Amino acid sequence: VIIDELRARRPRVHCITNTVAQTFTANMLLAVGAVPSMTIAADEVADFVAASGALLVNLGTLDPQRRAAIAGAVEKAVYKGVPWLLDPVFVERSPQRGAYARELVRKAPSGVRLNGAEFESLAGAGADTENLARYAQRSHTVVALTGEVDVVADGARLARIANGHQLMGRVTAMGCAGSAVVAACLAVESDAFVAIASGLVAVGVAGELAARRAKGPGTFAAAILDAIYALDGETLRMRAKVE
Amino acid sequence: VIIDELRARRPRVHCITNTVAQTFTANMLLAVGAVPSMTIAADEVADFVAASGALLVNLGTLDPQRRAAIAGAVEKAVYKGVPWLLDPVFVERSPQRGAYARELVRKAPSGVRLNGAEFESLAGAGADTENLARYAQRSHTVVALTGEVDVVADGARLARIANGHQLMGRVTAMGCAGSAVVAACLAVESDAFVAIASGLVAVGVAGELAARRAKGPGTFAAAILDAIYALDGETLRMRAKVE
Amino acid sequence: VIIDELRARRPRVHCITNTVAQTFTANMLLAVGAVPSMTIAADEVADFVAASGALLVNLGTLDPQRRAAIAGAVEKAVYKGVPWLLDPVFVERSPQRGAYARELVRKAPSGVRLNGAEFESLAGAGADTENLARYAQRSHTVVALTGEVDVVADGARLARIANGHQLMGRVTAMGCAGSAVVAACLAVESDAFVAIASGLVAVGVAGELAARRAKGPGTFAAAILDAIYALDGETLRMRAKVE
Repeated sequence: VIIDELRARRPRVHCITNTVAQTFTANMLLAVGAVPSMTIAADEVADFVAASGALLVNLGTLDPQRRAAIAGAVEKAVYKGVPWLLDPVFVERSPQRGAYARELVRKAPSGVRLNGAEFESLAGAGADTENLARYAQRSHTVVALTGEVDVVADGARLARIANGHQLMGRVTAMGCAGSAVVAACLAVESDAFVAIASGLVAVGVAGELAARRAKGPGTFAAAILDAIYALDGETLRMRAKVE
Repeated sequence: VIIDELRARRPRVHCITNTVAQTFTANMLLAVGAVPSMTIAADEVADFVAASGALLVNLGTLDPQRRAAIAGAVEKAVYKGVPWLLDPVFVERSPQRGAYARELVRKAPSGVRLNGAEFESLAGAGADTENLARYAQRSHTVVALTGEVDVVADGARLARIANGHQLMGRVTAMGCAGSAVVAACLAVESDAFVAIASGLVAVGVAGELAARRAKGPGTFAAAILDAIYALDGETLRMRAKVE
Repeated sequence: VIIDELRARRPRVHCITNTVAQTFTANMLLAVGAVPSMTIAADEVADFVAASGALLVNLGTLDPQRRAAIAGAVEKAVYKGVPWLLDPVFVERSPQRGAYARELVRKAPSGVRLNGAEFESLAGAGADTENLARYAQRSHTVVALTGEVDVVADGARLARIANGHQLMGRVTAMGCAGSAVVAACLAVESDAFVAIASGLVAVGVAGELAARRAKGPGTFAAAILDAIYALDGETLRMRAKVE
């Protein structure tokens, strides 16, 4: 089971992510058993990526320094065969970010995690399963569309994941941190489709468990870290809503 | 009631704010019902502001990139009529920041939220109600002075708000996040004086409710997010201490 | 007792620290009674340092802007006699960071806090007590090695501190925030060896108390802020495991 692999192998995950999400993302990775690093210094990032089991590229709060870091990080990841996940946050809000995201997709990330509005903007097509599958195939990637029901598509296979809780939408960086967990799964499971679906199930189940203890979004953010820290393979098997 | 308007309309609030405050600020906005964005990339910020209902400009951790972002953001806000709030954090600690803040006030923000030391440094005058009113009138803005008792002045009207709790001073970015809630109120209420006073009451009441559940500043930070998420117009009316 | 001095004098601590750690670091400082500031703007940082009781220099997420800020900040600290603490995060992961850290050590910080891997990379020697003492003496600093047992060495004296809890390793920036508490102690106690050991004991004891209330790393992060806020000299004396 991937969750046990994560705890046993404690993979390093390098994250180029937005400043809003960094702390919660690092805490989510630590809670699940991975070891986060986050530098965006141009002369350091390649060394960090080379020593990591996976790379997360998140386009939130995108600035020139982050772009330079992404270039170096992705180049090193591709060269070294380090799996990497793209999270094109808010790609629909700025044409520049859209163009940049499309450029990155051309480098064939192991996966792309995004919501409906982001997919529509990126792919120029509605976020239905057929378009997802086609986009995944054409882009040589796995698409993970998150929403009330998550959909994972790699062109050949399709999974629907109905785990999660509405409070997840009321905590900033929940999606970004979820992407980091997915990236951690890519570090220990070479089938990207399986890794990504497993990561999304883990985050969704943790969200359900957290909601039972939370009194609102503030206590929920702490509770989901507790929940993902305590998750075991048995609980995941029992609670996974995958088809 | 403004709080119901926020939940119904879910305004986008773009925040140029310091890196220390970003996460808590985003969580506060999500908890109150608004949708935060935070990019400071020069080529994106105007697009984000144009699509937002309000803009927050916070001068904490001010660096050249933030200054460039502020210039583009404020220009777009003024052009599009997007209300904007200035929070001149630590303006008294650095002459450069002081000069920069005064320049921004000349662009007539919808409101300026600050504490006593910041007002004295910015206005070159003691933080009494007369000076607040005069400064507000002269600067074509609404001044919101926060402290044990908050004072809101627009030159003609004056409100004193006695809500709040001392633990609010022991959580970083509480003031910054409070400013973001105030900015969200500006997005749904065109009378800036009313919007700002309402926002401060909401944050103060949430602080009082949170303190009843908190065991210290750590649990308080989570509890105030829970409290602002659960706030309703009835509770606000019952607990508001405004004169 | 240092903890009482902190509450009475509320020293300002300027932190140049990584973006992942900023919020939790600021909250830890506020909880212990200090007043944090965090700007890295080149034209402001010297003014902030000059008005502070201590300076923290943390090398996480090191970028050109942070380096410029560190140069100005350290120069001002040395000139004004403001005590400063170096935390060379992840120095073993990038040769550039290593060279930079060694340059900073040559400026004789009041203390250097680091873990075993970081010490070995920085000193080019195993992290045993003899090497720690030798490195401290040669570098005119106090070395604080943190791990399951913390070791503080100034060349002449040596302290071993066995406080702490394993959940501290599952919350991001716990070490960075601990360094900030240590820096705050340097602001109120001129014997750096005593200040640093006291700070580490306070953080370790707070961790033990927090673990009794936490259900995992999420609630632990909040609980340690509550615990450090409530710490008193009596509790510290009773629970300190120093030899």
